[in-house]
Amino acid sequence: MYETLAARLAEQEQQLIEWRRYLHQHPELSFQEKHTALFIAEQLRSFGIEIRTGVGGNGIVGVIRGGSPGPRIAFRADFDALPIQDEKEVPYKSTVPGVMHACGHDGHTSILLGVARTLQEHREQLKGEVVLIFQHAEEKPPGGAIAMIEDGCLEGVDAVYGIHLASELPLGTFGVKAGPSMAAVDAFTLRIHGKGGHGARPHQTIDALVVASQIVGALQHIVSRRVNPVDSAVVTVGQFISGTAFNVIADKAELQGTVRTFNPEVRTQVEQELRRIVNGLCEASGARAEIDYLNGYPPLVNPAAETERMRGLIARRFGRETLVELEAAMGAEDFAYYLEHKPGNFIKVGSSTDDVGTQYPHHHPMFDFDERAMLQAAKLFIAIAEDYLG
Amino acid sequence: MYETLAARLAEQEQQLIEWRRYLHQHPELSFQEKHTALFIAEQLRSFGIEIRTGVGGNGIVGVIRGGSPGPRIAFRADFDALPIQDEKEVPYKSTVPGVMHACGHDGHTSILLGVARTLQEHREQLKGEVVLIFQHAEEKPPGGAIAMIEDGCLEGVDAVYGIHLASELPLGTFGVKAGPSMAAVDAFTLRIHGKGGHGARPHQTIDALVVASQIVGALQHIVSRRVNPVDSAVVTVGQFISGTAFNVIADKAELQGTVRTFNPEVRTQVEQELRRIVNGLCEASGARAEIDYLNGYPPLVNPAAETERMRGLIARRFGRETLVELEAAMGAEDFAYYLEHKPGNFIKVGSSTDDVGTQYPHHHPMFDFDERAMLQAAKLFIAIAEDYLG
Amino acid sequence: MYETLAARLAEQEQQLIEWRRYLHQHPELSFQEKHTALFIAEQLRSFGIEIRTGVGGNGIVGVIRGGSPGPRIAFRADFDALPIQDEKEVPYKSTVPGVMHACGHDGHTSILLGVARTLQEHREQLKGEVVLIFQHAEEKPPGGAIAMIEDGCLEGVDAVYGIHLASELPLGTFGVKAGPSMAAVDAFTLRIHGKGGHGARPHQTIDALVVASQIVGALQHIVSRRVNPVDSAVVTVGQFISGTAFNVIADKAELQGTVRTFNPEVRTQVEQELRRIVNGLCEASGARAEIDYLNGYPPLVNPAAETERMRGLIARRFGRETLVELEAAMGAEDFAYYLEHKPGNFIKVGSSTDDVGTQYPHHHPMFDFDERAMLQAAKLFIAIAEDYLG
Amino acid sequence: MYETLAARLAEQEQQLIEWRRYLHQHPELSFQEKHTALFIAEQLRSFGIEIRTGVGGNGIVGVIRGGSPGPRIAFRADFDALPIQDEKEVPYKSTVPGVMHACGHDGHTSILLGVARTLQEHREQLKGEVVLIFQHAEEKPPGGAIAMIEDGCLEGVDAVYGIHLASELPLGTFGVKAGPSMAAVDAFTLRIHGKGGHGARPHQTIDALVVASQIVGALQHIVSRRVNPVDSAVVTVGQFISGTAFNVIADKAELQGTVRTFNPEVRTQVEQELRRIVNGLCEASGARAEIDYLNGYPPLVNPAAETERMRGLIARRFGRETLVELEAAMGAEDFAYYLEHKPGNFIKVGSSTDDVGTQYPHHHPMFDFDERAMLQAAKLFIAIAEDYLG
Repeated sequence: MYETLAARLAEQEQQLIEWRRYLHQHPELSFQEKHTALFIAEQLRSFGIEIRTGVGGNGIVGVIRGGSPGPRIAFRADFDALPIQDEKEVPYKSTVPGVMHACGHDGHTSILLGVARTLQEHREQLKGEVVLIFQHAEEKPPGGAIAMIEDGCLEGVDAVYGIHLASELPLGTFGVKAGPSMAAVDAFTLRIHGKGGHGARPHQTIDALVVASQIVGALQHIVSRRVNPVDSAVVTVGQFISGTAFNVIADKAELQGTVRTFNPEVRTQVEQELRRIVNGLCEASGARAEIDYLNGYPPLVNPAAETERMRGLIARRFGRETLVELEAAMGAEDFAYYLEHKPGNFIKVGSSTDDVGTQYPHHHPMFDFDERAMLQAAKLFIAIAEDYLG
Repeated sequence: MYETLAARLAEQEQQLIEWRRYLHQHPELSFQEKHTALFIAEQLRSFGIEIRTGVGGNGIVGVIRGGSPGPRIAFRADFDALPIQDEKEVPYKSTVPGVMHACGHDGHTSILLGVARTLQEHREQLKGEVVLIFQHAEEKPPGGAIAMIEDGCLEGVDAVYGIHLASELPLGTFGVKAGPSMAAVDAFTLRIHGKGGHGARPHQTIDALVVASQIVGALQHIVSRRVNPVDSAVVTVGQFISGTAFNVIADKAELQGTVRTFNPEVRTQVEQELRRIVNGLCEASGARAEIDYLNGYPPLVNPAAETERMRGLIARRFGRETLVELEAAMGAEDFAYYLEHKPGNFIKVGSSTDDVGTQYPHHHPMFDFDERAMLQAAKLFIAIAEDYLG
Repeated sequence: MYETLAARLAEQEQQLIEWRRYLHQHPELSFQEKHTALFIAEQLRSFGIEIRTGVGGNGIVGVIRGGSPGPRIAFRADFDALPIQDEKEVPYKSTVPGVMHACGHDGHTSILLGVARTLQEHREQLKGEVVLIFQHAEEKPPGGAIAMIEDGCLEGVDAVYGIHLASELPLGTFGVKAGPSMAAVDAFTLRIHGKGGHGARPHQTIDALVVASQIVGALQHIVSRRVNPVDSAVVTVGQFISGTAFNVIADKAELQGTVRTFNPEVRTQVEQELRRIVNGLCEASGARAEIDYLNGYPPLVNPAAETERMRGLIARRFGRETLVELEAAMGAEDFAYYLEHKPGNFIKVGSSTDDVGTQYPHHHPMFDFDERAMLQAAKLFIAIAEDYLG
Repeated sequence: MYETLAARLAEQEQQLIEWRRYLHQHPELSFQEKHTALFIAEQLRSFGIEIRTGVGGNGIVGVIRGGSPGPRIAFRADFDALPIQDEKEVPYKSTVPGVMHACGHDGHTSILLGVARTLQEHREQLKGEVVLIFQHAEEKPPGGAIAMIEDGCLEGVDAVYGIHLASELPLGTFGVKAGPSMAAVDAFTLRIHGKGGHGARPHQTIDALVVASQIVGALQHIVSRRVNPVDSAVVTVGQFISGTAFNVIADKAELQGTVRTFNPEVRTQVEQELRRIVNGLCEASGARAEIDYLNGYPPLVNPAAETERMRGLIARRFGRETLVELEAAMGAEDFAYYLEHKPGNFIKVGSSTDDVGTQYPHHHPMFDFDERAMLQAAKLFIAIAEDYLG
């Protein structure tokens, strides 16, 4: 059965590319993916798949019912984009200023659409059911997964699988890892309140911009001096906005950032150190801080048994040489929530080649992937479906 | 004659307040003051004053011709606003988000309109001419003054006078100073180019936000360690913009700031040190900097003779106790250009009272002034006119 | 045989404590351990053990020849102290100002002396030979191990064992780890040359103290931003010396520090980043840097087979519950060099109890250990000897 | 009379040089000037001058009684050295490691010895008395002046004069200034207490060296952001001592520094800001600070009348072209205390030529002066004496 379905998928490769490029041109930010959701719903309906929309927000859940009873497995794709300006020059460049599919979610969605159509066409041969989870808002905690789970998307599901295109892996490879694989993610917003004034009279002000700059420097010390060096942690300030004019001293500054950790104690420690540093530096300068600290996704932990099953499956279907054993990485994924509830696995699918355009890191303004990776990923889903329901 | 004109002015106080409040509600940024210019032109025309518009940009020059020949003196008011969000709660609060008359230029304009109408009404008694310079773009180098001068606004002028409302002086006082009184102003824009990437993978990036924060810190050393402590200098970074999302490492950062100095050698030194610091820190981190450094207004130097003349005039008309001898201040004024060409003076007019709302520093989001200061300033202009042309 | 020897050891516990306390009171810095070496040599000679002194410096090698032929195993103890002021109040407190056995090497030496006497007394029963390596200068790269190896201390040796007392492990436990267990250590000295001058005239100087302070801050960014967060690295500046008087601006500053890494690529990267940061910051301020960067000990890698052997041995002799599986730690050990040449193992021996005096981290001015740990460690050596030569 | 005395002085120039070189080779730190005091006392006694030793510490007061009654004027020379290593290569280089006459006090002492002998030889012609104040400990607050004054050195004195050799002025010139001329000086010692530990385990420590480095950086903000830019202030950290070994994290750091201001409000403000910064940064990192803040000398204010008298005297005796009008400088002088009690003046005497060795700033390890400046200064004292007592 796998060969039949894989062949059918291959016929649709051009369609996958078209879908993906459409999505790439029309990216939407997390929690604002109205049109993307409509687009997905429309495709699924056109395949004759039964769907539920508005699941936990903009999420969509489809179900493919096999010809005979059996297990119920879920496949998940995410579909939100990032607040990054697309800087690459391609015909399918983002048409939305400052918004871009810089992580590959457009690809994930196209892949699962192709998988959905193929499985739906051959549903009679399936023993069991495939749940299609099209998830909004993966990029921004609290994320869409938690709400979709609360809204029932995992009900009755026996195992759940997700993939991520990966520019750090060559096209044709699959990356797996058992145990803690991706980091917990927290998000913080720091609002520093000083006292504004004329750019020529610093002594009458409390310069919030300068205080915030000191804070950025001091936050580096959390990782360099406070966290056990054999533990991993990242503290990134991703955004610094302060001031309105070159000659006016800013009365406030806003910093937004993210914290990544694996170890729950380190996670707690980083938050405490951050609060202490921010408050101490504000005290040192007479400024005042508001700290919003949001605990985001948990670490993603791939269960050992399903990881082993994936190793075998990939070796059988694609060749042992395509298998890459990954190290833990500081990226986060709200797929972690699904794995807190159900067995399953999260697998990386190589998407880079010698073409420099496919080699940029994720979240880079030049990010792109080799579109052949989509067929690879789709075949992997098909192989998993056949393994459980064939 | 002075008493007559002063009395006439007093009758118009309510009109001054109305003009001022209208302008306050409709602020326009430097070089974008189209509507403000139209408003001024309309008023001047309604007084029957002969005007020239579009002088050096949005500037307007009016001329009041006296009944008999005599000297030609110029009065200047500036009319641009600042990119600051008005945060005070008053009925005449700015209606333009993020733009505000936070320096008092709305007052300056109303004052000179009142002076213009009064003088125009009594022009027959004047021996000589009064040139009215309504200047755009004082807040933003290169400023409007230099272009208006090139466009002829000082032609034939014997002396030029300007005033500034001053929340640091009490209502009813006048601040004068001979010699270097306000600082030279330079403006800089620093664009730091790093390498963007995923917020969880700093090692694949060059974090422009962090480099820019280090630069803000290191720039403090120019004033604290490099400039002779008996010289005065200010280096302010007024704006810091970097990054687009909490979880994306910024590929660039933009800093805008201002430098204030009196001494030309210190002015040159600060620029050199700034360039060295920015380049050195970029080198230290593998980032790259673009530095735009604009030499703005020169120091404002009040000629000794005219300052003495003003001291006498103010003592005579308002009482010796209203005279405040100012110290040099780091604020800058493109009125300095007028004084490079012609004799004259720049005088501060006290605008604060016990009312806390009138006590905020200029350029503060809560800035306001006691509107009675406008009549005081208008009377000063009238007194000057009478002194030269009476 | 083990029981006999262990019992004999137990009889000598008081002697071990006496030796240890004598050494504790007379600490000597790395490469200056003349008297300590004489003391050790004297003891070994008094046991009738054949020794070679001056091995690779202050090192001493003894040999215990068994009654019959067999393998040749080596036991190593280090005997140098640290430039730390002993701040604890005990009768055996260091008598040398600013020098202290703050790492437990005094204990290591006493342990191996006890082991040596015991084995020598029972040498007829041994099948093979035990080489006793008393090593100087473990605390300071290049360290004594490399010179002692070059001077032949490992000749003919089949396996080499060392232990370290560990305040982070409870008394009665043994810590083992296969693979990379301790970090590579590098040492750096940074000499920042500015321009000195009067404390009141910073503009005539280049303030080396301030530049060095900036460097300390910027070095934090290596670990926080440059190194892959899933790799481990430490950059510590241990010493900062600058200036001679409160009112004189320092013309130079000297920083000394250490770098710890596991991964050779990270090791190279940290050195490069450090050089770039130091040079960039000097350029930013007109200072000049001399950088001495010394590659010290390699990572300590415990071979899997010997680690497994130790696990079994410890479980058998002390009980499975005494076995602690360690995580990799950033501490360095020049025992790593022995393991680059020969199989063997490096084992930690728990030395802390509820007594707070035994709980300070190593290198702390209050560091001490529960002296009962010495008997534990000595028994472990005896058990290893019996395992190989019994 | 002036010519006779000046000629007599000129004969002694070689003696002045010898004395100076002897003192230069045997410098003593502030409050430790035992031998220097003995040397001075011995010389004065050999001239037959009546002296009192141990005045307010190591100070010496001599009196030259004129042949007839008249005013009583005082001349002051200071004689302590600095904790700086002499780095110049001259035969009279300091023989004391780490101690050096790097400010010219050796010269001041020789000058006043020459003046003393000359006046003593001609005392019959003087109408009045000359008090010779040889003062210890000028370099280190609280300084020797305050104690010598309390011990009576100014009793009955009508006017007091002091000079300072000045490498910033050319040989042959004299620098005068009326009003505030030299800054108030404060001294601070900051002891930062962290928690020491192993250089590889930062997470177990609180790194006092890193905290102290942050403090050095943050202290720059006092001058750059907190003090009114038209006021002058200097905050210098002259000494930073932390840590004992490259691989041990420092448990404490000591910073010593100086603050210079003119305005008493700024003086208070700087202390407050310093305390706030130090405490805030310690809080941010869990460290603890001890702050010793010593208010040192007041600003030196030259009375207008005596300054005018000096201008006339110098013009008359040395030519108008030798007169340099100085700007206020941030250096401090406990001569300020004498001027709080009595009229008088403090005058700078140019000591540099084209010879680069005479051009280094004071307190520089290469500092030296052209020895001909001593005769100039001595003649100035003689001229003052003649002016008052001639």
